[in-house]
Amino acid sequence: MKMRIEVLDTTLRDGAQGEGIIFSLEDKIRVIRKLDELGVDIIEAGNPSSNPKDRQLFAYARDHLKPANAMLAAFGSTCRPHAKAADSPECVCLAECGVQAVTVFGKASRHHVDKVLETTEEENLRIIADTVGYLKKKGLLVVFDAEHFFDGYGIDRVYALDVLKTARDAGADRLVLCDTNGGTMPWDIARIVGDAVSTLGGYIGIHCHNDAGMAAACTMEAVRAGAMHVQGSVNGFGERCGNADLCTVIPGLALKLGKEVLREGSLSRLGDTARLVADTVNLPMNENSPYVGRSAFTHKGGMHIDAMLKNPDTFEHVDPGKLGASRKYLLSEMAGRGALMTRLREIDPALKKESPETGRILGELKQLEADGYSFEGAEASLKLRLLEMLGRRRSFFKLTDFHVVCGKPGDNENSQAYVKVSVNGQTEITADEGDGPVNAIDLAVRKALARFYPCITRMKLMDFKVRVVNNLGTASGVRVAMETTDGRHVWSTVGVSSNIIEASVIALTDSIEYMLCGETEGWD
Amino acid sequence: MKMRIEVLDTTLRDGAQGEGIIFSLEDKIRVIRKLDELGVDIIEAGNPSSNPKDRQLFAYARDHLKPANAMLAAFGSTCRPHAKAADSPECVCLAECGVQAVTVFGKASRHHVDKVLETTEEENLRIIADTVGYLKKKGLLVVFDAEHFFDGYGIDRVYALDVLKTARDAGADRLVLCDTNGGTMPWDIARIVGDAVSTLGGYIGIHCHNDAGMAAACTMEAVRAGAMHVQGSVNGFGERCGNADLCTVIPGLALKLGKEVLREGSLSRLGDTARLVADTVNLPMNENSPYVGRSAFTHKGGMHIDAMLKNPDTFEHVDPGKLGASRKYLLSEMAGRGALMTRLREIDPALKKESPETGRILGELKQLEADGYSFEGAEASLKLRLLEMLGRRRSFFKLTDFHVVCGKPGDNENSQAYVKVSVNGQTEITADEGDGPVNAIDLAVRKALARFYPCITRMKLMDFKVRVVNNLGTASGVRVAMETTDGRHVWSTVGVSSNIIEASVIALTDSIEYMLCGETEGWD
Repeated sequence: MKMRIEVLDTTLRDGAQGEGIIFSLEDKIRVIRKLDELGVDIIEAGNPSSNPKDRQLFAYARDHLKPANAMLAAFGSTCRPHAKAADSPECVCLAECGVQAVTVFGKASRHHVDKVLETTEEENLRIIADTVGYLKKKGLLVVFDAEHFFDGYGIDRVYALDVLKTARDAGADRLVLCDTNGGTMPWDIARIVGDAVSTLGGYIGIHCHNDAGMAAACTMEAVRAGAMHVQGSVNGFGERCGNADLCTVIPGLALKLGKEVLREGSLSRLGDTARLVADTVNLPMNENSPYVGRSAFTHKGGMHIDAMLKNPDTFEHVDPGKLGASRKYLLSEMAGRGALMTRLREIDPALKKESPETGRILGELKQLEADGYSFEGAEASLKLRLLEMLGRRRSFFKLTDFHVVCGKPGDNENSQAYVKVSVNGQTEITADEGDGPVNAIDLAVRKALARFYPCITRMKLMDFKVRVVNNLGTASGVRVAMETTDGRHVWSTVGVSSNIIEASVIALTDSIEYMLCGETEGWD
Repeated sequence: MKMRIEVLDTTLRDGAQGEGIIFSLEDKIRVIRKLDELGVDIIEAGNPSSNPKDRQLFAYARDHLKPANAMLAAFGSTCRPHAKAADSPECVCLAECGVQAVTVFGKASRHHVDKVLETTEEENLRIIADTVGYLKKKGLLVVFDAEHFFDGYGIDRVYALDVLKTARDAGADRLVLCDTNGGTMPWDIARIVGDAVSTLGGYIGIHCHNDAGMAAACTMEAVRAGAMHVQGSVNGFGERCGNADLCTVIPGLALKLGKEVLREGSLSRLGDTARLVADTVNLPMNENSPYVGRSAFTHKGGMHIDAMLKNPDTFEHVDPGKLGASRKYLLSEMAGRGALMTRLREIDPALKKESPETGRILGELKQLEADGYSFEGAEASLKLRLLEMLGRRRSFFKLTDFHVVCGKPGDNENSQAYVKVSVNGQTEITADEGDGPVNAIDLAVRKALARFYPCITRMKLMDFKVRVVNNLGTASGVRVAMETTDGRHVWSTVGVSSNIIEASVIALTDSIEYMLCGETEGWD
């Protein structure tokens, strides 16, 4: 039988300590639902005595949130030196906030007991025993986080292990070894966890930070050494360099160590979870993230792509299907015919690698790239170009003329655009104003086209990026990349010109045309 | 004596295979200069037979780039089966492109020899020996990259080691074990590198990919097992999930393993290098990156900050000073004052950390940053803002009015700008035309000012980057970053507005003013 590893997610507690990460009450509820769906065992959702938002959350959860799989946990500290847990408002708050599980942290390093807690080693052990005992009597599952355990072990092994024994003897259900400063190396984690497991037995857990870039590796080593409970956060969000990234650790445990983790089918929901959490805090998803990033199974080098097309296991360490992901080939100056063929065959299944048309199209694409185009992340423009090269691009409209006037800014309508479009021989001339020239043209073109294609009123520009493609000053080439949505689909286009307005207009008209293609001929 | 570890940087080759990463020729030259300054031993700059840009780069490098510390390396493949290296255009191109070092890759996995190369095991060994031998005869330092070494070792240990022996016997100077698919675990890397080191002796290197999130840990384990040469990229840029991040590995080798790596003082230049490389490809810096991210030494949790103020080693695994970084506290009166003080004292040595002026300036800067400004990589704009906040900004000119008209592009002068400037009460009205609105305004403003300040005719815009600072479409805020030169100095400015033209004008007028400052009051 496979060994089952328990997962505690701390995205909403330790993750919320990351710079720029703020969860509203509604955000937390949304993330809890998603983590429960994913199959996380314990969701550490906040620290009720540190802020009113978390108190509100637990009050709400008690009546309205019934996770199907997960236990909800609240986080807090042991009582203070010379106090009793039962008289400590923080401990009472933890015990009474309505959760089934609590994570309580105590100091495992003599240095921290002395310098931060400013008490004696004995008193530290007493408050740990008292707090754990108090929470156990309340019928809670108690996860004991031994803060600074690894640094403390380096200073005084016996004391660090005594802290664990104290918590265990007081009834703690999990003893979690924390690399709070994130500087411990994987080989040291392996050695020290091994020692704790053999000295104490019991249910050992691991909590790593990523300050040395090793949190995921350290977590894996801890499990190899006998830890059965892992803590981490989605996308590795957390203070400083973050926590162990559960999106890396969970597939690693399942696929590399052969452990049972979360539930059947969880792996294929991990990517969605990662994206939802990033969206929730309005941070960009790291697309290079192992297993869950959009680039994780994206191939660019020409020789790599050719090899992948011969045999898909040649450049992949796991099957992307296991993660609910799919393989992608990029077209770039480094790509050969292999990558192109997968795109061309979507348009015309009869096309062959050796056919002269394929060679011609590859040549035209390389010329466009030499001119500064980049079709990576501009799939919509690529598709339109390929249709055009194959003589299959349908003309929906022509922007036959425009000009735009920009005055000294000061209000929000500082730019005026005049546009003339033609659709099937019919002409429409109109104008609009906007904040900046591209905004004014965008509004005017869509106003002119709405008469013919009402659907385009649903279009909304999401992102807009500009980059000079060679360093000759403003008169050199600029590449404009745009991301557009209609509320259901998202697509990306690109335009290149020596003139930023023209480059924007190319990306914009591609974007409109791609939407019209999708609406009339079906979305990809 | 400390063991010295050699570093090969492949940002410009393997890094360029990352999705969305495109280096122009000028970009590559800029990055090479920075890596050389950092103290990298070998800079793998491109693959001359895969694309014309890299051929151009090496041709340029031969005559114009003389790195002070680094060797420049070109990357390529062994010759094809049944061919001779001396007759193979790719191998000849590698040998003749003018570098001192080459990285040549060959297959170390039986599976790849059979399925991708489609030849016999013996023929694969022959082409490796022939290619390495040919390149050695040309007097080059030969780094042999054993592709898919770890997967190959798992399939057939003897054959994988035979590949290394063949390369060594043919004269290869470095034998680099590549985890090409990035799926090997650190403990397996340690075991297999240990075996290769003890079986072969010789100068073993390591090249890891990050598909399982373990590339940095794997690289560290390889060095512990005896590897003396490490390959990786700045910010971990690279195909799929990227390569081992040198910004994590280099501090790890120096601070955690006590190895000698790069040069004296290199660690404190690492952050700058990371930022320059990210800026060059117009990707956001990952601010949670170990050692070099802005959040790496940023404390947010209230209890953590309290502990840090009592004793700075309580929540840091290394001293940020070693990385040329500084500690930051969020949500705290103390935040950022230290860093700000160094800038303020350059302007007014009498200013104190506690003075009310310092607090006011900090507040104003925070407001600008909340509006979307970012002064990192825009030192010229920062200096002007600080002078202004201290009431010491000198007024050289005012752009009192402008407007610009852009027609449908077609020729190179599609935009006309009218500008009105005033200098010491004197007014100059003029106009000019250009390729795009920013170019037209730039030309017109400088034409108007040249009467008063002839030196500005030497000014030349080098780079121009635009990014939307929140995702509300073209009407949202845009940040324009500009880089300007007068042939001797290079400076960077930034402007933010909801209107791209206004943002550009702010960056442009800052740039002109900074130059006039430098010319009249001395350059920094």
